[in-house]
Amino acid sequence: MSARPAARAALYLAGTGSALPGAPVDNARMAKAFGISEDWTDLFVGTRTRHFGWDLDSGEVLYGLADLCAEAAERALAAAGTDPGDLDFLVLATATPDTLLPTTANRVADLLGLDHLPTYQLQAGCSGAVQALDVGRALLAGGHRTGLVIGGDVTDRFLDARRGAVALPTQELINYVLFGDGAAAAVVSADPVGEAVAVRALLHRFTGLGRAAGQVVDWHGAAPPDPGRRMLFEDYKTIEAAVPAMAAEILWELLDTAGWTPADLDFLLPPQLSGRMTEQIVAGLGMPPGAREISCVRETGNTGNALPLLQLDRLMPGLEPGRRALSVTVESSKWIKAGLALEKVRPGEGQR
Amino acid sequence: MSARPAARAALYLAGTGSALPGAPVDNARMAKAFGISEDWTDLFVGTRTRHFGWDLDSGEVLYGLADLCAEAAERALAAAGTDPGDLDFLVLATATPDTLLPTTANRVADLLGLDHLPTYQLQAGCSGAVQALDVGRALLAGGHRTGLVIGGDVTDRFLDARRGAVALPTQELINYVLFGDGAAAAVVSADPVGEAVAVRALLHRFTGLGRAAGQVVDWHGAAPPDPGRRMLFEDYKTIEAAVPAMAAEILWELLDTAGWTPADLDFLLPPQLSGRMTEQIVAGLGMPPGAREISCVRETGNTGNALPLLQLDRLMPGLEPGRRALSVTVESSKWIKAGLALEKVRPGEGQR
Repeated sequence: MSARPAARAALYLAGTGSALPGAPVDNARMAKAFGISEDWTDLFVGTRTRHFGWDLDSGEVLYGLADLCAEAAERALAAAGTDPGDLDFLVLATATPDTLLPTTANRVADLLGLDHLPTYQLQAGCSGAVQALDVGRALLAGGHRTGLVIGGDVTDRFLDARRGAVALPTQELINYVLFGDGAAAAVVSADPVGEAVAVRALLHRFTGLGRAAGQVVDWHGAAPPDPGRRMLFEDYKTIEAAVPAMAAEILWELLDTAGWTPADLDFLLPPQLSGRMTEQIVAGLGMPPGAREISCVRETGNTGNALPLLQLDRLMPGLEPGRRALSVTVESSKWIKAGLALEKVRPGEGQR
Repeated sequence: MSARPAARAALYLAGTGSALPGAPVDNARMAKAFGISEDWTDLFVGTRTRHFGWDLDSGEVLYGLADLCAEAAERALAAAGTDPGDLDFLVLATATPDTLLPTTANRVADLLGLDHLPTYQLQAGCSGAVQALDVGRALLAGGHRTGLVIGGDVTDRFLDARRGAVALPTQELINYVLFGDGAAAAVVSADPVGEAVAVRALLHRFTGLGRAAGQVVDWHGAAPPDPGRRMLFEDYKTIEAAVPAMAAEILWELLDTAGWTPADLDFLLPPQLSGRMTEQIVAGLGMPPGAREISCVRETGNTGNALPLLQLDRLMPGLEPGRRALSVTVESSKWIKAGLALEKVRPGEGQR
């Protein structure tokens, strides 16, 4: 790789927003619907509720990904005080687009009334929101001023409502209780406007050379599917073994890039794989003294591409000027390190 | 939208490469395999051959998208004289990833022996290669020096080899003879190295507000599919009506941005929807005097995200220093205007 580091382009979060469909679905409801032991979910997964955009009884999709993304985007625009007409670009990250074409990014542009701007859709997993911010930063470096970054995922094509309360094999069962539907968004700017949260460091790096995928999400089209194909697979044991060490490496690298020490941190936004695994990761990292954890997975489930932006949306109200936060994300699909070092700009402070 | 234009970051193509699987499949072979009239294909589609990465008799996939993309990338790296270790990033565009996760971009990184670099996968259609170059340009503006841009698509999940020579309904039939499998790649650089083809203008703009999608490509997951869902659909008549005018608008806008007139053009790379439609578009545009058409669709079929890079790969051997080319691309899925104004740099000429 090139030894020359990338220029640090200015990237500010001007406002954030999120959208979770319907009422929270608790583990008792999941037990009733899918025959999944409530105790088992509480103990081994540690996720208490999640939201679904589809009806648990009929499977009917009430909120598609584009709906959730547009709602989150509208909230982010309102929070930032940004007129949609001032947007120079839109970047959306997801693993589960509504259709392969047209892209969900373009359907969201349509829902928001946007036209005549470049739109980009990134295919990604848990690191997608950081990847979208990374592309946003590059587009700002290329001369744009204001953009919209969105991440989201939905579960309706992998969880089968029509199965009813039939006991599932453990390999499948875990997918039902791990994931949730949701979207989150941020207005990004080259200037410290709105919430004026500066991204002091951004990490997005593939580290999967020669490593087996920790997560597989497959699809089929119009031709009859190959019955031998594994459609959804989590190598939970490998993930459990690999993620804590990767999280620590990400944390230290971001601190180093930002020129901070652990004592400088006011907030830590750890990886959100499941309630239980996030607990283990935080225990392994050792919470920096004085830093507060911002997590959402216990209430939202793993919402994939929404996660870091969902945590940022929870962080915003408590982030005072001068305060610092670190977001750490690991994508296990093919092993990506990702994260953000954030600092709320003090009033009157310009770009660094 | 912001009135302030994006800064024109330097983007050079250092080398290109392409990969088409197996031997060309002609219309006689298609007629035999799928009961599609050879005369009808010749007359109404005008595409003579295409390549498939899967066996026409068994449906067995011999070359996946990652295989084709890695092969095209290796050829682009060789043509540019670039060491894979010097790559700062990889951007891959496709509508038909091998899996949703891990991304094909990361599987290609693995096949190329790349690690510890940011990788991006764009979900796109016919404008994908230009979108990937657009992201590449932004990443170069952000401080990177050298990157790999890849576009490709495959058909095996939509065309059903096992159907055999059974007459298909016309709506489905068109999909069999329109598309082909393929990938193409370019090494991009912030400096005029290798082939040193400067991108003088790049257009990538969503124009689909309030317009119905001209193309739909859908997917299924593990849950039983909704039988009412339209998996692959082309609104061929709307495409036929809308694309020629959009192509003309793209051509004139690119000329304007580059500060060129039609007389300045040595090569024109028109949209590649089908042999017949490309003919109609070129007739409608009126070929600029002195410009030569570079097309591939008659021999390759519509290879989606590979197309503009596939045309560029055909352009390269005949592009002398000082010569200019225009690439015009329309994505009908949700209406995207895209294109490139290219000029081969004269020896010794630096950045503009």
